[in-house]
Amino acid sequence: MFEEGLRLKALHGADRVADLSIGNPDFPPPKLFREAFREAALADLPHAYMPNAGYPETRERVAQHLDRRGLLPGIGASHVVMTTGAAGAINVVLKTLLEPGDEVVVVKPYFLEYGFYIDNHGGRMVLADSRSDFELDAGAIERAVTPKTRAVLLNTPNNPSGRVYGESALREVAEVLTRASARYGRPILLLSDEPYREVVFDGVPFVSPATLYPNSVICYSWSKSFSLSGERIGYAAVNPRLETEDAELFLSALAMCNRLLGFVNAPAFLQHVIARAVDAVPDIAHYERKRARLLTALDRAGIETVRPDGTFYLFPKTPGDEADFVERLKQRLLLVVPGSAFGRSGHFRISFAAPDETVERACGILETLA
Amino acid sequence: MFEEGLRLKALHGADRVADLSIGNPDFPPPKLFREAFREAALADLPHAYMPNAGYPETRERVAQHLDRRGLLPGIGASHVVMTTGAAGAINVVLKTLLEPGDEVVVVKPYFLEYGFYIDNHGGRMVLADSRSDFELDAGAIERAVTPKTRAVLLNTPNNPSGRVYGESALREVAEVLTRASARYGRPILLLSDEPYREVVFDGVPFVSPATLYPNSVICYSWSKSFSLSGERIGYAAVNPRLETEDAELFLSALAMCNRLLGFVNAPAFLQHVIARAVDAVPDIAHYERKRARLLTALDRAGIETVRPDGTFYLFPKTPGDEADFVERLKQRLLLVVPGSAFGRSGHFRISFAAPDETVERACGILETLA
Repeated sequence: MFEEGLRLKALHGADRVADLSIGNPDFPPPKLFREAFREAALADLPHAYMPNAGYPETRERVAQHLDRRGLLPGIGASHVVMTTGAAGAINVVLKTLLEPGDEVVVVKPYFLEYGFYIDNHGGRMVLADSRSDFELDAGAIERAVTPKTRAVLLNTPNNPSGRVYGESALREVAEVLTRASARYGRPILLLSDEPYREVVFDGVPFVSPATLYPNSVICYSWSKSFSLSGERIGYAAVNPRLETEDAELFLSALAMCNRLLGFVNAPAFLQHVIARAVDAVPDIAHYERKRARLLTALDRAGIETVRPDGTFYLFPKTPGDEADFVERLKQRLLLVVPGSAFGRSGHFRISFAAPDETVERACGILETLA
Repeated sequence: MFEEGLRLKALHGADRVADLSIGNPDFPPPKLFREAFREAALADLPHAYMPNAGYPETRERVAQHLDRRGLLPGIGASHVVMTTGAAGAINVVLKTLLEPGDEVVVVKPYFLEYGFYIDNHGGRMVLADSRSDFELDAGAIERAVTPKTRAVLLNTPNNPSGRVYGESALREVAEVLTRASARYGRPILLLSDEPYREVVFDGVPFVSPATLYPNSVICYSWSKSFSLSGERIGYAAVNPRLETEDAELFLSALAMCNRLLGFVNAPAFLQHVIARAVDAVPDIAHYERKRARLLTALDRAGIETVRPDGTFYLFPKTPGDEADFVERLKQRLLLVVPGSAFGRSGHFRISFAAPDETVERACGILETLA
């Protein structure tokens, strides 16, 4: 999609194409981060290898942040492995965890690249449906779990649906996993991929699945919250309540896999900056404004959608055939992603991580469909 | 080794331990790089996703650099994929290339993690010996090649031996691969891992294996030359003479694998800096001085070694049993790596990417062995 957007812009002029296909926030990072970035750049900090899990100071600051926010109470620096973004974190955890043929349950709709990440390490993805409003369906997850299940990978707030999974649904999933772990005699790991954690609207509470289930790892990236998608900086944070005798082995295996997969360690300079700016608060008011504008345009166009509580995505139903509709929008120079790219056809994803004028142009195009 | 070094330093005091185990240059990067780094940090450049292969400007500057230096004449930006270091580059190429059971030939002594990189993608490492002076042995490589061979991975200047492979030996290897490719009906790819390319002494000419064989990829990192090992910035550069009808497919598959392995793209900020500083020339005079000092100490200790032409490593023979000797050095607080960690026992590796005083302390310890 990225390359297709560039092609259409070259052909028709960048100002005529409304590319809402990619979740690529090209906004300034938070002020605290920008200040820390400049300060670190002028400080001649080391660029050499550090332990594969990251600088002790950075890991400590991340642990304090997670502890203070109540996401993983009691977590310490030793439970944090700095990674090259959440994609790096997920791959490192899966490499550590999976034997060939092991299964990982993923809930639809989902980020398509999860399937590749699982395949990279010999695993098999098993899909579970969500409810029609994209809330978790614990029963569907229970039916997807088998003796080969090693992990469940959840993404909340969810790309592409914008759903922030609710606490009661998450508690039901935790119960399902606790029962299944007991039944099969080994813990099923819950991976919570939550890079949109800070992009939540209307005071809806964000609850990390990891808070509710001890055998869990938070995979995080500052790509979305701090608008740093190109920099590749994130972490895997292991729940200190992990129920295994080998927690220390698991933690050192994560650091080792970070190295052996070729990541080696998260980029040094960004770690220096994060140590200084981990508590920066992103500005999401503009996302809220763009969401409101797009909801109005969809309503005017008579297109049905679930109102997203978080992320910078909308996932409306396509009027009629999905491929035809997405192609029709493309003819009018509005680029969106078909829902089948997220395992849920009959929908399309709009990213509003875009400038106001692009969102406005897209709304104009949508409204002509009415 | 890294963690063991930290442990011993904590126990005995950092100034008493001579840790020459790790190739981790902790020196200032070249002046041009440092200036570009500060300039880029103050310029508020974008941090968002770029195409997975990297910023067009950075790829263009890298291609110009390789062309001008005569390493890959005629190369253009489209043949360069920016990666998270050489480890990232090698993994991306292997993921693109290998089917389960495919073989990759590696020459001993070798960087042990190659075996993991090959295994990550379902491949099988086949080892070939080098000559006693660590020069390439084309006959040994020919004997290691089978119908399943998809690639030969060479590292010159070589870690751990310091050997800079000579042009005539490289030409013999190119002939072996040309013959084997014809015999088995598909090209064997030559991967040249050359992060120590700029660390060559005494005017010894560096010849990239890729210059002599069309089906080749240079994997490079600025970790060693610019002292940036923690930053994770490098590239895979594909020979424009690649003999396949699918060169374009191969190039787009490299970019795709960069994404699907979880690297996504090389860190954005470092790409901005490299675009400005690709022609910076590293200072290697201090390495030359340290090499001379260590060669003297080894001579005084009666320890036999091949004189390295490049890298910041020495790979002497152990007097007596390897493990005993390395343990004896550790008792005296000199940390080195046993040769068996590089597939060549009866040796030990000394890294002189260390401050003068550490090298001096190590020399003192070696000289007491005499």
